[in-house]
Amino acid sequence: MNREEILLKNYPELASLFNEIKKIKESFDSEFLAKLNRSLPFNELLFDRWDRAKMLGFGEGTSIYDSSYVFGDVKVGNNTWIGPNTVLDGSGHLTIGDNCSISAAVQIYTHDTVKWAISGGSEQYEYVSTSIGNNCYIGPSSIISSGVNLGSGCIVGANSFVNRSFPENSKIAGNPAKII
Amino acid sequence: MNREEILLKNYPELASLFNEIKKIKESFDSEFLAKLNRSLPFNELLFDRWDRAKMLGFGEGTSIYDSSYVFGDVKVGNNTWIGPNTVLDGSGHLTIGDNCSISAAVQIYTHDTVKWAISGGSEQYEYVSTSIGNNCYIGPSSIISSGVNLGSGCIVGANSFVNRSFPENSKIAGNPAKII
Amino acid sequence: MNREEILLKNYPELASLFNEIKKIKESFDSEFLAKLNRSLPFNELLFDRWDRAKMLGFGEGTSIYDSSYVFGDVKVGNNTWIGPNTVLDGSGHLTIGDNCSISAAVQIYTHDTVKWAISGGSEQYEYVSTSIGNNCYIGPSSIISSGVNLGSGCIVGANSFVNRSFPENSKIAGNPAKII
Repeated sequence: MNREEILLKNYPELASLFNEIKKIKESFDSEFLAKLNRSLPFNELLFDRWDRAKMLGFGEGTSIYDSSYVFGDVKVGNNTWIGPNTVLDGSGHLTIGDNCSISAAVQIYTHDTVKWAISGGSEQYEYVSTSIGNNCYIGPSSIISSGVNLGSGCIVGANSFVNRSFPENSKIAGNPAKII
Repeated sequence: MNREEILLKNYPELASLFNEIKKIKESFDSEFLAKLNRSLPFNELLFDRWDRAKMLGFGEGTSIYDSSYVFGDVKVGNNTWIGPNTVLDGSGHLTIGDNCSISAAVQIYTHDTVKWAISGGSEQYEYVSTSIGNNCYIGPSSIISSGVNLGSGCIVGANSFVNRSFPENSKIAGNPAKII
Repeated sequence: MNREEILLKNYPELASLFNEIKKIKESFDSEFLAKLNRSLPFNELLFDRWDRAKMLGFGEGTSIYDSSYVFGDVKVGNNTWIGPNTVLDGSGHLTIGDNCSISAAVQIYTHDTVKWAISGGSEQYEYVSTSIGNNCYIGPSSIISSGVNLGSGCIVGANSFVNRSFPENSKIAGNPAKII
């Protein structure tokens, strides 16, 4: 698929804009590879993840990738790392503490659309708040349901589904997640 | 990583384009936060998810995020919500009904590359159609294999792997998914 | 949310740039639908996945979507397909062979932040190398931990969590993954 040719055929006046966008990307690509030894999606090259955390009122030293979706009322403490492709749903109020590792593709919810879907849209969404303490590790692709409270120091294994609360320093994994 | 400085060093003539792109993003960011209380990835800020659903011929009231990948022949009914980071593979024909909730990071397949990979590329991809009825809730990060038919009113728990068909109103979860 | 109106209110001079970006997108959208029967996120429309693989020094015929995150030292062989929303972490050295299918949302790690998180940031990240042989199929959303070695010809089921090594031609699935 030759993009330049498509534009030259349909919108020849836009080919130079497209080439400028490509040059911006290549310029950032080179710098990220050389200085940080990483290769990122286009949107991450363009925008800074600490700037976004600041814009959202998250704590000092916290970062959040551009590919993260943040809904509603989400509070995050200091020095927490929020990975790419995450979903932080604060429509029912979400709190995350300091120094957590929210791994890539983690989804944390405070609302639930099960009843909405199976009622054919006649029932409402349901909202319950969720909280994650300090110093928690949430493994890649884990899902945390609305209403869950995880105490500080919890470790959640990769690909877990957490549908109930656990006290501090719990080590949990599985679907549904249990103490391991 | 100061992006302005990188451009000023390599392509000073592109620094103003980059700043214009940043202003467009900031403008949409502010509006989404103020009006919809959400913060979205750059591509979602730029493009409307109902417009995309219409472009794809999906039903009235259905929306699909920009971060969704849609392959081949995919039909979707009315008022269905298709979340971010989803994969809808219709290379072997996929049908999704009305009023479904296709949660974030769900992947629904109608082809399979297992034989292709383990044969070192000498075997072909395999294609079988898949269907999801009306009023189904597919939980976050669940994967649905090619050939699966889910009847209307099914609930699929988060992080499930669904590799066989289930009749209407089934409530399933796990890896592989079973009735719960 | 009418984006044109937002710009006309805040930055009327940027409305034409936004419309040009939309035209570029629509132009590529049409061509991808007509020629390849697929609809992709904005960043995938703009940039070629074979070009990116070449830029990263991956083997002949290998492709990697723009939405993939690649960190550190990652080596990939020939004719390997790397799906969207994947994370390839080579901070501790990652090798992937020829002709593999690395499905969408797979994450492969060579570092671990569990001790960092639960120690409140006082312990260091841990790094161990990971390798995937030739002709492997890694199912959608599977997570592979640091230190895992998968021999050639392995099949990993969808939504698995692989936290130990397996010899060639193993067929594994589950959380944690076991021989099936």
